[in-house]
Amino acid sequence: MRNSTRGDVDPFIVMDVMEAARQAEAAGRSIIHMEVGQPGTGAPKAATEALAAALDDPLGYTVGLGLPELRQRIAKLYDEWYGVDLDPQRVVVTAGASGAFLLAFSALFDNGERVGLGLPCYPSYRQILRAVGLTPVEMPTAAAARYQPVPSDVAAHQLDGLIVASPANPTGTMLDLVEIRALSDACQEAGAAFISDEIYHGIDYDKKPVTALQATDEVYVVNSFSKYFSMTGWRVGWMVVPEDHVRRVERLAQNMFICAPHASQRLALAAIDCDDELQGNLEVYAENRRLMLEGLPKAGFTKFAPPDGAFYVYADVSDYTDDALSFASEILDQTGVAVTPGLDFDPDEGRRWLRFSYARSTADIIEGLQRLERFMSERQA
Amino acid sequence: MRNSTRGDVDPFIVMDVMEAARQAEAAGRSIIHMEVGQPGTGAPKAATEALAAALDDPLGYTVGLGLPELRQRIAKLYDEWYGVDLDPQRVVVTAGASGAFLLAFSALFDNGERVGLGLPCYPSYRQILRAVGLTPVEMPTAAAARYQPVPSDVAAHQLDGLIVASPANPTGTMLDLVEIRALSDACQEAGAAFISDEIYHGIDYDKKPVTALQATDEVYVVNSFSKYFSMTGWRVGWMVVPEDHVRRVERLAQNMFICAPHASQRLALAAIDCDDELQGNLEVYAENRRLMLEGLPKAGFTKFAPPDGAFYVYADVSDYTDDALSFASEILDQTGVAVTPGLDFDPDEGRRWLRFSYARSTADIIEGLQRLERFMSERQA
Repeated sequence: MRNSTRGDVDPFIVMDVMEAARQAEAAGRSIIHMEVGQPGTGAPKAATEALAAALDDPLGYTVGLGLPELRQRIAKLYDEWYGVDLDPQRVVVTAGASGAFLLAFSALFDNGERVGLGLPCYPSYRQILRAVGLTPVEMPTAAAARYQPVPSDVAAHQLDGLIVASPANPTGTMLDLVEIRALSDACQEAGAAFISDEIYHGIDYDKKPVTALQATDEVYVVNSFSKYFSMTGWRVGWMVVPEDHVRRVERLAQNMFICAPHASQRLALAAIDCDDELQGNLEVYAENRRLMLEGLPKAGFTKFAPPDGAFYVYADVSDYTDDALSFASEILDQTGVAVTPGLDFDPDEGRRWLRFSYARSTADIIEGLQRLERFMSERQA
Repeated sequence: MRNSTRGDVDPFIVMDVMEAARQAEAAGRSIIHMEVGQPGTGAPKAATEALAAALDDPLGYTVGLGLPELRQRIAKLYDEWYGVDLDPQRVVVTAGASGAFLLAFSALFDNGERVGLGLPCYPSYRQILRAVGLTPVEMPTAAAARYQPVPSDVAAHQLDGLIVASPANPTGTMLDLVEIRALSDACQEAGAAFISDEIYHGIDYDKKPVTALQATDEVYVVNSFSKYFSMTGWRVGWMVVPEDHVRRVERLAQNMFICAPHASQRLALAAIDCDDELQGNLEVYAENRRLMLEGLPKAGFTKFAPPDGAFYVYADVSDYTDDALSFASEILDQTGVAVTPGLDFDPDEGRRWLRFSYARSTADIIEGLQRLERFMSERQA
């Protein structure tokens, strides 16, 4: 049967790493998972208990924009987290951040239009853009700019839109309010849409992230219940859009998704109020991060992007290799520690970078770091 | 902020009807819901009980193509339902049929390519195609062809792809094996992709539907757990693709969706084996259909498409109006029966048609038919 060219997206390299790790594990090896981008924990217990009690309801379609009480509760979160007064009407409940991006791209861009991404970045931005007939524009970034795009990129690359992520995946770096405002201004000047991916908000350590809504209302903000709220498999997230885009996004959502999963929406509503358990998860990440920032340099991984938030350390391994894929295979093979080569995040420079995730248990992090240290000291001996 | 033209999709008219019905209900009126396209029942009880017991698991991301055991079980369904031997590798678990269409369109078509739809049809085909930068081609159909496309349409409309639905929404009409084979042959001859929407399979009465897989392997078959399995709000469906498309669709699925909701996949796996409860639902539809086919003509709705399957009767009301939207409003206003004007399904001819759904309880159907009969006899008096 016929194929499209837009459907020729790249494989997810991390998936191959995960599959190799899974096979090794199935064969009886002890594997430490520093490759995965998801918490080891499930949804908060009080929330799953509330959902269990609701399973007798039919849980049919919700309205396209999502359960009104969930939209209201999400709006309140913006007051609690940032002191931002947000109209619940501007909140769209989505089928994960993935669903939010599909909606945003349809609402904002026409065939072939150019959407900028600062490298390294979450690989699916590029692939989803291609899959829906748009043009991803991959832009180099600088260590001095914390591996984030800068305002001059918008005109220089003739962008119709710009996606930023703060904290970012894979680097963990954040943008401050001044930087976000400058990027937003550059977009407005160029008539480009500004999209802010904030799915790692809540997972931060020394400093709090700012939401793009503190800088401007002319933005699509994407967030998710997958990370801080620990609900990856439930596929529910949200988007905040400008007031005059709500009706447009509603029509797209009704047609493209009908609605986000109803049970997941109920669970999310309960999860928002499970701060105790979620803060407990965060304490684990914080301790893991402390161990990583201490242990990785001991193992010889001394150069990395400022790990402001999320649960990743993105390390420059150019002293050891310019073939991160082989290097990751070697590490998995020799130590049983699964890590992600940078190639998913940056098809060129990524050959010299590895991403280490610390989303799992502290015991795993301790064990993984010991194995990495031993491996690297033997390798260099 | 900027807009796209691709995002300018039409409103769902049925949603406005549902909102008017909801408001009337909230104001204390008794409303009979003949407008909705979803069962009044929830997921099978044994399945929700199994899921409740699984809620202690983290339920994180599944692999992109879906839980292997669910893919296997779906493949077995093709043996049970049609005697078709299907390789589970060809089954892709999706975020509802909606997710399946988004995947199929990215895998098969490039910007602006022409995808044919026989009018009347499910309105979201048209809107999703537009939203992802493709060209929906609306093709008139004939009563003699049971309001379905015919093979000559493929060349006549220079199609790059064709979507058929059997049983169809809104008409309920089915295609037989000879017709499906002829449509598939015409597509292959023209190099057009053939997509068969089979989401109403299992909801049939006098004769069984055939799957396009009985005619050809060169097809994307879309199905869902929403209708027969009564799981609308869980947003889980599936797609069967040609063997040489599996890897391609997997990559798209990983990037565009990550995975279908995990809990919904678990629930679906259990629901497949709840035939007793599901057959009970079907008996209700069968009785409702019997009442409709007897009661609608008594009320004066004598002309309708052959209601082979699904839970709709699509009636030609041109004897009474050429403004179905006002007619539906009048019916809701005067009788409290919510029905759907044909405009969603056919922007032109739909002005002279109404869709009546019989997915709810038999008591509601009896009451609704009585109200319709009274209303029509007074209107004509």
